[in-house]
Amino acid sequence: MMVNVGLAQMMPKIGDFEHNHDELERMLKMASESNVDVLVIPELANSGYAFDSLDEARSLAEDVPHGTFCRTLADWTNSGRLAVAGICENSADGLYNSGVIFGDGRLMVTYRKVHLFGKEKEWFVAGSKEPPVVEFHGHRYGVMVCFDWVFPEMSRILAVKGAQIILHPANLVLPFAQNAMITRSIENRVFTATANRVGEERGLGFSGMSQVTSPKGDVLLRMPTEGSSLACCDVDLTLADNKMITQQNDVLRDRRPDIYKRLTEPT
Amino acid sequence: MMVNVGLAQMMPKIGDFEHNHDELERMLKMASESNVDVLVIPELANSGYAFDSLDEARSLAEDVPHGTFCRTLADWTNSGRLAVAGICENSADGLYNSGVIFGDGRLMVTYRKVHLFGKEKEWFVAGSKEPPVVEFHGHRYGVMVCFDWVFPEMSRILAVKGAQIILHPANLVLPFAQNAMITRSIENRVFTATANRVGEERGLGFSGMSQVTSPKGDVLLRMPTEGSSLACCDVDLTLADNKMITQQNDVLRDRRPDIYKRLTEPT
Repeated sequence: MMVNVGLAQMMPKIGDFEHNHDELERMLKMASESNVDVLVIPELANSGYAFDSLDEARSLAEDVPHGTFCRTLADWTNSGRLAVAGICENSADGLYNSGVIFGDGRLMVTYRKVHLFGKEKEWFVAGSKEPPVVEFHGHRYGVMVCFDWVFPEMSRILAVKGAQIILHPANLVLPFAQNAMITRSIENRVFTATANRVGEERGLGFSGMSQVTSPKGDVLLRMPTEGSSLACCDVDLTLADNKMITQQNDVLRDRRPDIYKRLTEPT
Repeated sequence: MMVNVGLAQMMPKIGDFEHNHDELERMLKMASESNVDVLVIPELANSGYAFDSLDEARSLAEDVPHGTFCRTLADWTNSGRLAVAGICENSADGLYNSGVIFGDGRLMVTYRKVHLFGKEKEWFVAGSKEPPVVEFHGHRYGVMVCFDWVFPEMSRILAVKGAQIILHPANLVLPFAQNAMITRSIENRVFTATANRVGEERGLGFSGMSQVTSPKGDVLLRMPTEGSSLACCDVDLTLADNKMITQQNDVLRDRRPDIYKRLTEPT
């Protein structure tokens, strides 16, 4: 069974929730028209990215799953759809840069970004749990957020937990991630789906080129560097269950956790 | 202080030790003429790659460090040089696909390849130790061999142990490693130096494109897909001591070993 994976390459405006919510609705409508089954929406899509202060970030955050952006997203996933979005999340212990997965109209999991990028360290509390994998209608979806790409540990954990595809909301500033995600696919034999934002915000430029990669490292879809739009492609997620990079090599079973002890020692 | 890193892109012949040793001497001569300080020689350079049988592999293996190939290599490293080569190693408990580092005329360390590729599993015993880093004349050199590239754990371990450059003897068959090594550089902020072989052997083709990458992911040197030759470039290895990918992000200190526990659990 093919799954139609959609990427919403958006241009949120900092501090303009109405614009961002309109943009979300426009994307959801396009996704519906394209029969998207699984939709990936960029990081911090409800708030914009380049906050001036913690106060500003706080004023743009919403509760998960009861905020307006989340409710609109949840509604869209009625009737068998899945969606993940980056959300500026308000919680009792501070703000999180979160990836929320909704499926069949309800919140399935919240992942709070572990590796904060740049000034995000001033605004957000870092997540303290490994990234999650959810089962949905017979497939397994992992999630990580933006800068997590630079830490191969994250996609590896998702693959070891059985993810067939890594859903990856992003606001990419550095020029490296799109190429690195090809390597993440190959080393784990998983699909990846990065939804990046575009445009500029207070001097920060975002690189677009949202993309889907296959377990063999093929780029199945790559969007332009500019422009707010939706793109999608059909994928057979079960291809990610074949971990054999050669007839003799399973990229996960060939791992030697006994030799990797140093990776979990405090530094 | 700049270090001149050389890559010997060679074409060993299976079963023809004399040819392989001549080829080594030719490369060492060129390296000397180019004032190479640190030379990387491909995987299994003494033996060739595509063995017909374990018996054939055994007949082509040599002792470390007393074999002829090793002794020639050791001699070349007199007067302040370093060299790493892939060696088909004979030992009491079987054959290893090893990377041997010689410096100042002596064996500094032997790394026995942990992740065996394809039919290597029929010929070699897998190494059971993490990859090593050696200090030499004020710099820190890590080593891994060929297919170890697909396991991000290996280059990560080398970076965590302080390697400034990953010396990477290879016999690359799959088309992915050269690009993946760019990601290995970026995620660890280290140099990499892959010496690949060229040519065909019993139906297996090797891809050449030996390369050096910088901690920022720049390809400093990439050799052609064919042809046996030597290339070199000057690098400032201390650039790898700066792990800051942004002003706020140290790619090693930002790691969260507490969250990575799953990576060292038996699978």
